Amino acid sequence: MLAELRGLNEECGVFGIWGHEDAAQISYYGLHALQHRGQEGAGIVTKEGKKFHVIKGEGLVNEVFSGNEINDLKGNSAIGQVRYSTENGRGIENVQPLVFRSTTGSLSVAHNGNIVNAVELREHLERQGSIFQTNSDTEVLAHLIKKSSGSLTQRDRVKKALSMLKGAFAFVILTDDGLMVAQDPNGLRPLSLGKLGDAWVVASETCAFDLIGAEWVRSVEPGELIIINDKGLQSDRFAKAADSAMCSMEYVYFARPDSDIDGINIHSARKRCGKRLAREVHIEADVVTGVPDSSISAAIGFSEESGIPYELGLIKSRYVGRTFIQPTQEMRERGVKMKLSPVRQVVNGKRVVMVDDSIVRGTTSKRIVNLLKEAGATEVHVVIASPPLVSPCFYGVDISTDSELIATNRTVDEIRELIGADSLTFLSAEGMVEAIGRPDKTKNCGQCLACFTGEYPTEIYSDTVLPHKKEIV
Amino acid sequence: MLAELRGLNEECGVFGIWGHEDAAQISYYGLHALQHRGQEGAGIVTKEGKKFHVIKGEGLVNEVFSGNEINDLKGNSAIGQVRYSTENGRGIENVQPLVFRSTTGSLSVAHNGNIVNAVELREHLERQGSIFQTNSDTEVLAHLIKKSSGSLTQRDRVKKALSMLKGAFAFVILTDDGLMVAQDPNGLRPLSLGKLGDAWVVASETCAFDLIGAEWVRSVEPGELIIINDKGLQSDRFAKAADSAMCSMEYVYFARPDSDIDGINIHSARKRCGKRLAREVHIEADVVTGVPDSSISAAIGFSEESGIPYELGLIKSRYVGRTFIQPTQEMRERGVKMKLSPVRQVVNGKRVVMVDDSIVRGTTSKRIVNLLKEAGATEVHVVIASPPLVSPCFYGVDISTDSELIATNRTVDEIRELIGADSLTFLSAEGMVEAIGRPDKTKNCGQCLACFTGEYPTEIYSDTVLPHKKEIV
Amino acid sequence: MLAELRGLNEECGVFGIWGHEDAAQISYYGLHALQHRGQEGAGIVTKEGKKFHVIKGEGLVNEVFSGNEINDLKGNSAIGQVRYSTENGRGIENVQPLVFRSTTGSLSVAHNGNIVNAVELREHLERQGSIFQTNSDTEVLAHLIKKSSGSLTQRDRVKKALSMLKGAFAFVILTDDGLMVAQDPNGLRPLSLGKLGDAWVVASETCAFDLIGAEWVRSVEPGELIIINDKGLQSDRFAKAADSAMCSMEYVYFARPDSDIDGINIHSARKRCGKRLAREVHIEADVVTGVPDSSISAAIGFSEESGIPYELGLIKSRYVGRTFIQPTQEMRERGVKMKLSPVRQVVNGKRVVMVDDSIVRGTTSKRIVNLLKEAGATEVHVVIASPPLVSPCFYGVDISTDSELIATNRTVDEIRELIGADSLTFLSAEGMVEAIGRPDKTKNCGQCLACFTGEYPTEIYSDTVLPHKKEIV
Amino acid sequence: MLAELRGLNEECGVFGIWGHEDAAQISYYGLHALQHRGQEGAGIVTKEGKKFHVIKGEGLVNEVFSGNEINDLKGNSAIGQVRYSTENGRGIENVQPLVFRSTTGSLSVAHNGNIVNAVELREHLERQGSIFQTNSDTEVLAHLIKKSSGSLTQRDRVKKALSMLKGAFAFVILTDDGLMVAQDPNGLRPLSLGKLGDAWVVASETCAFDLIGAEWVRSVEPGELIIINDKGLQSDRFAKAADSAMCSMEYVYFARPDSDIDGINIHSARKRCGKRLAREVHIEADVVTGVPDSSISAAIGFSEESGIPYELGLIKSRYVGRTFIQPTQEMRERGVKMKLSPVRQVVNGKRVVMVDDSIVRGTTSKRIVNLLKEAGATEVHVVIASPPLVSPCFYGVDISTDSELIATNRTVDEIRELIGADSLTFLSAEGMVEAIGRPDKTKNCGQCLACFTGEYPTEIYSDTVLPHKKEIV
Repeated sequence: MLAELRGLNEECGVFGIWGHEDAAQISYYGLHALQHRGQEGAGIVTKEGKKFHVIKGEGLVNEVFSGNEINDLKGNSAIGQVRYSTENGRGIENVQPLVFRSTTGSLSVAHNGNIVNAVELREHLERQGSIFQTNSDTEVLAHLIKKSSGSLTQRDRVKKALSMLKGAFAFVILTDDGLMVAQDPNGLRPLSLGKLGDAWVVASETCAFDLIGAEWVRSVEPGELIIINDKGLQSDRFAKAADSAMCSMEYVYFARPDSDIDGINIHSARKRCGKRLAREVHIEADVVTGVPDSSISAAIGFSEESGIPYELGLIKSRYVGRTFIQPTQEMRERGVKMKLSPVRQVVNGKRVVMVDDSIVRGTTSKRIVNLLKEAGATEVHVVIASPPLVSPCFYGVDISTDSELIATNRTVDEIRELIGADSLTFLSAEGMVEAIGRPDKTKNCGQCLACFTGEYPTEIYSDTVLPHKKEIV
Repeated sequence: MLAELRGLNEECGVFGIWGHEDAAQISYYGLHALQHRGQEGAGIVTKEGKKFHVIKGEGLVNEVFSGNEINDLKGNSAIGQVRYSTENGRGIENVQPLVFRSTTGSLSVAHNGNIVNAVELREHLERQGSIFQTNSDTEVLAHLIKKSSGSLTQRDRVKKALSMLKGAFAFVILTDDGLMVAQDPNGLRPLSLGKLGDAWVVASETCAFDLIGAEWVRSVEPGELIIINDKGLQSDRFAKAADSAMCSMEYVYFARPDSDIDGINIHSARKRCGKRLAREVHIEADVVTGVPDSSISAAIGFSEESGIPYELGLIKSRYVGRTFIQPTQEMRERGVKMKLSPVRQVVNGKRVVMVDDSIVRGTTSKRIVNLLKEAGATEVHVVIASPPLVSPCFYGVDISTDSELIATNRTVDEIRELIGADSLTFLSAEGMVEAIGRPDKTKNCGQCLACFTGEYPTEIYSDTVLPHKKEIV
Repeated sequence: MLAELRGLNEECGVFGIWGHEDAAQISYYGLHALQHRGQEGAGIVTKEGKKFHVIKGEGLVNEVFSGNEINDLKGNSAIGQVRYSTENGRGIENVQPLVFRSTTGSLSVAHNGNIVNAVELREHLERQGSIFQTNSDTEVLAHLIKKSSGSLTQRDRVKKALSMLKGAFAFVILTDDGLMVAQDPNGLRPLSLGKLGDAWVVASETCAFDLIGAEWVRSVEPGELIIINDKGLQSDRFAKAADSAMCSMEYVYFARPDSDIDGINIHSARKRCGKRLAREVHIEADVVTGVPDSSISAAIGFSEESGIPYELGLIKSRYVGRTFIQPTQEMRERGVKMKLSPVRQVVNGKRVVMVDDSIVRGTTSKRIVNLLKEAGATEVHVVIASPPLVSPCFYGVDISTDSELIATNRTVDEIRELIGADSLTFLSAEGMVEAIGRPDKTKNCGQCLACFTGEYPTEIYSDTVLPHKKEIV
Repeated sequence: MLAELRGLNEECGVFGIWGHEDAAQISYYGLHALQHRGQEGAGIVTKEGKKFHVIKGEGLVNEVFSGNEINDLKGNSAIGQVRYSTENGRGIENVQPLVFRSTTGSLSVAHNGNIVNAVELREHLERQGSIFQTNSDTEVLAHLIKKSSGSLTQRDRVKKALSMLKGAFAFVILTDDGLMVAQDPNGLRPLSLGKLGDAWVVASETCAFDLIGAEWVRSVEPGELIIINDKGLQSDRFAKAADSAMCSMEYVYFARPDSDIDGINIHSARKRCGKRLAREVHIEADVVTGVPDSSISAAIGFSEESGIPYELGLIKSRYVGRTFIQPTQEMRERGVKMKLSPVRQVVNGKRVVMVDDSIVRGTTSKRIVNLLKEAGATEVHVVIASPPLVSPCFYGVDISTDSELIATNRTVDEIRELIGADSLTFLSAEGMVEAIGRPDKTKNCGQCLACFTGEYPTEIYSDTVLPHKKEIV
């Protein structure tokens, strides 16, 4: 499904590198590979001796670093982030990494995910005199570290601070003597460790390693704190690993097809979901088409298993950008097809299986079904390569309320009716878990299914149920 | 194959509309749909009464019209162009449409294609006192029209001027009392006529009609001059139709998959080419992958016919843009994969069929084969959904010299060796013609095969053999 | 008076250089010094062997050349222009220099001034088959040169073409073997010749020579054609010199205070006008203040002669730029003072002599008188260092119609009433001519007084009386 | 003297408004009027109910607010700042106002000046767990407020925090229920209170009131804390007023000529300094000229008192902007005169009195003397309308070290020799104090003369003697 058309977005991607003379340039390319995880802001912080350099801005990576700015980022270690911002977190001050300046040594932090007890921790910190300049959860961690007793070592202070956080998070922390990397106790968001020559790198997705030519070493483990400095890499823990619960939507929608999560390739996992779906439902149809880009893999799988030919029934424009030009009334009535066009001759007079990865509000599905029917499809059978979304996500996916989800209080047939499809099929939860095929032996093979089942792997704080309650004026 | 990686480009797309109050807005969307035909400049000219308004600039359509400029383009008729510029034609003065101001009535012209006797005509005109401000062939037509005897009607002067041109061209001409549309006698470039409510529209490709909601009426015929004014549409001829010779590369590479040319859908034609290829060669392999975006259709066809599973073995970045950041030495050695990434788990340990639409210089093919092998492919079999390119094009495709073409003086096996493939297969010319399947009964079913065979459908002037000889200081 | 506030503008400044390896850079600085003569467009054309390079754009010189573009302008000769555009001449295609490309040798032309028989010449040329792409008079000259019989030498063709032009003009023409410079037979616009080392330079004002370090040699003479090439400089004539008639407004308003015209310094001439004014009128007042920037010199002279102290009663903002922020209603009522602020303590309770260089429509004068009275001035005596403007200018000053001129059908006292002044005095025409003090012994000491007297030094063509009749759709 | 040429800069200007529906627009215009106090960054924060909106960026006010951003700043109270940044304080995170978000109510702060015990306070705060995100002194105040005991009222906490600061400062603080305004106990920086209809406004200079149409009420008093909320205005004190010590350089150089400080107009004060100077020295000369813009008033005064005619001997370009175009070697040798040109005919063969406001490093003075001599001046007598600068400023003027000051260890004659002048005269300190003429009866009439005498009105902390010691990595 098209991110641009529906607003199912994840919050951010992170990158870090220690010990490479081209730290900033490599971070630039690393963030470029993670661009699909956040397009609203980007930043890189480098460390040159004790001095921290920072450049960040709103927009794409190559907009923020459009000139020679990167050359000002001297130093051989760096962290960076690409950012998707929720309504509450707009503004240049929220672009990460944040830098905390101190006469005794500075600190830079970037993170990915969502901390469910952030409001409680903020209130606690404010009562002790902390003041906040951003709405971001990242700032909470910095205050917690700073507030820890001065008699602890820095590593212990970071561990203590991390142990107070609940939710989904991947942190990269650059201090004046090291790079620290942490993953939440459930491992809800992907985070991988790699090597580039003698340098260590970390990234939200392995596709960043491929672009920079780094080798994947392993995933950062749930509850693990990795400390990298000039003496090497040390693994520590700030929490016992809880049951692993990797976000299913990473496999279904977020991650790039060429990334692997815990050794499982995304394209392959999606294709298996498409195949499984073809085994769970039988449809008489002439062509299979996927909604580009994220549903192509599942559509190929569905076609291969069902034997129904796979076609490009929908084309995504390569040149989409912001436009302020108003379409005419006539165009508006027909639905402007700037981003997605049906291929008339492919679907005209045909029974079409339209494969999509998920349905959120249903409005986009309805528009695509309509596009296909206008182009002459005699039947449109919608098959979804994941189960119905029925519960909000508190771990960084921007689905905030039940009421936004078309599937919350509707039967499959009611949804089918609303989107105008001739049939509608969702992949079963078991089918999805088996098709993805994580080797983990824990519940759901270590996948978080909360948005499909309402069973959350972590405690959910009442105040944070609705993210808009977190708004800080 | 990736246009960005090799420089096989076509020159331009044109659009025109007569009789719609939102002429400029519709032209904007029309050009947006034609953006793939030229990304280096865009312009729209509208006519408001006798007054011509013009806005043009370098860059993409949504860069040239990034604000409210479109609202300055008043009037209910318009022509526009998106431009790919050759080395010789850079500069804002060459961005079309050109406007020729006159006290007796102005004229605006845009065109697509290449006029092979342009230099001869320029010299002829200059000897008679014409002066030129651009390097573009378009200006030649305007001078020819103006130079024709004043006793002729405007229509006759335009016909006489058009009849002097040799080569490939699609012209849209906006005068103070009408919109004229002309196609060269061989019909080398696509040009379609449509209706949007009561308004007439023309466009290089039908995908523009789909976006604006217009209905396709027919192709403009070879040698035809269409005159549209407030009295309606009239069809005239400036030349007898020669043998129709539509550019094969439009089907193979240039046109958008959702466009139709002379009723034949591009995606479907490419898929048939892929199927035919699978019948022409037998390969033992594990996966089929296409080089995005233009080779996907052929790859699907190859997979369907051969029974070898189709996979996303290569991913194209969605966020490619200009970057001035230098990759590090390490990255340069491994080949920067900003635009194209192999999906390691898909190809690792596999025998891969890599489908591409064509090979020009071979350098890109070599890089992609190498990417796949680095990612673990045990064999890479390159199959090309068109015949070897052996002759330069004089009709608007930017392949200017024999020496640039890897296939000119090499056997297929020598090319295979150069690109490092385990096998290399080209589609036969007959196979391509049959797979595309134009209903035309003339030679090659009305396709131009000049770049594959060296047989040109028009006279080729000695002076113009090498476009760089056309350079005007 | 403030150009920004009233629209009394002149059309353009030109620059040329022959024989210097840094031709483009020097032209950049030359145009920068001429920036006050036109802020709406700038361009430079260089010649490298037979090849012409051109960069031009809309905006200030340092906006058009904001990056490294200048380095693309190779070659050791160049011409350039800064442009003020009338309503009819907007658009990038009208930015000069124009380049006319030809297989037999190209030509670039820039000009300054206004040709009064341009429409007649255009019509004549169009009847012979010429087509125009701009609204600029410059293009007319190029066509006239081209149309001249091929048996003439290029110099003779240029002379013949120039001899057909009527009006005010300064041309710089770059051909593939020389730089030609021409001044109209009345010498209506300033144009100076200088030397920079071995290179020859020409510029509209001598301040350009000061900036680049060139030495002034002499003014270009009325009717003169200078030809500069590698053999040296030759002076020729295309017309007998008519009575010299340098534009008075150059002394009064346009030229920079540090420029000299025909050996007379602008600041000094203005100061003498102020002094003369103080001898022509006696005013009892406490302070003298000038309207920045162009009236400062006259105000100093008035103060010195009258003995009334000179004060900064009005301050011009250094940071004026385009703003889209709407002032509030309250601010609008009081008159936004973004560009000009009264100095309250200087004028409060004082009888103020406000010196301005001229009054065009009177609206700005009225606003400034009002600003001073609001700030507490008890009396405001307006003294104008030039006579009343009563006739339109056809020679390049943008005062196009009688009806725009407040003085056309009004007595001085009626104007005084309209602008709200306590008294109003204009400098007499004789006073101005004497104060400027040109050594020329011809009528009015060789000054054009047409806008003050209605006596035009050249024939005025009926069709061109109103410039808007020249509009070409 | 030209700020651009020498780097004598002050740190910032502030603006605030309470109770006006167009708070953001008025702040925009207020900051525009204060633009001369800082050109490197600008920001506005508005309060809409409890919600704070913030927009800030690097560059001029009309660059930061170049589009419709201002419309996003809803609310009827606002604070803003224009910023001059020292080397240590670059970066978007240092652009003010800063916003501190809190679940119990947010706070925004902007300030002007320099806090001399900032490093001590930061260290103190960090030991208590505060973390800093900027290098700015402003953040220190926010932490001090937050750290104060929760049992105090907000007003008392602000007073306690302010009382801990040493140095020069003007603060505007926007809380969720009021606007607070504070001035340091010596009143080192100007800060005025005004009314705009029913709304209260504060600004660093009164020229901001003139532009927005507000009336001046009074100066904020040394040690005063003004609290403005919907109940009206209350005056309180956080410190006893020390001896008033307004920065002399505000009168000499920084403030706009149309501003008044404590009722004394800047232009008038400067003119009196020029007159006084003419009484302190007798020079035989032909012309007086001032270095634009800040020395014009003193030059007029000098001319009026001495009887030597005042002339425009030096012209400042109206179109200065950043240029990346390298001047040629020839131009470099002669000194590029992009910003300042001598008027040759005015100075050629003349004995020139060149009036400047101050000399910092002397390099600019030397260049200007040289420009005048190259233009033909037979003698150049430099007269400076203030005493020699011998000591660094710790209160916000960017003269950081003794070694930068040409006058620190040199006699007047040695300086004269260095700058190449025929004579050099400084205004005496008593002369300056009397000419400015503040009514204050305390020492030096309430002026700070520290940079001229080395006597600082506040304690100077050893650690802060050299600002570069404050650098925080």
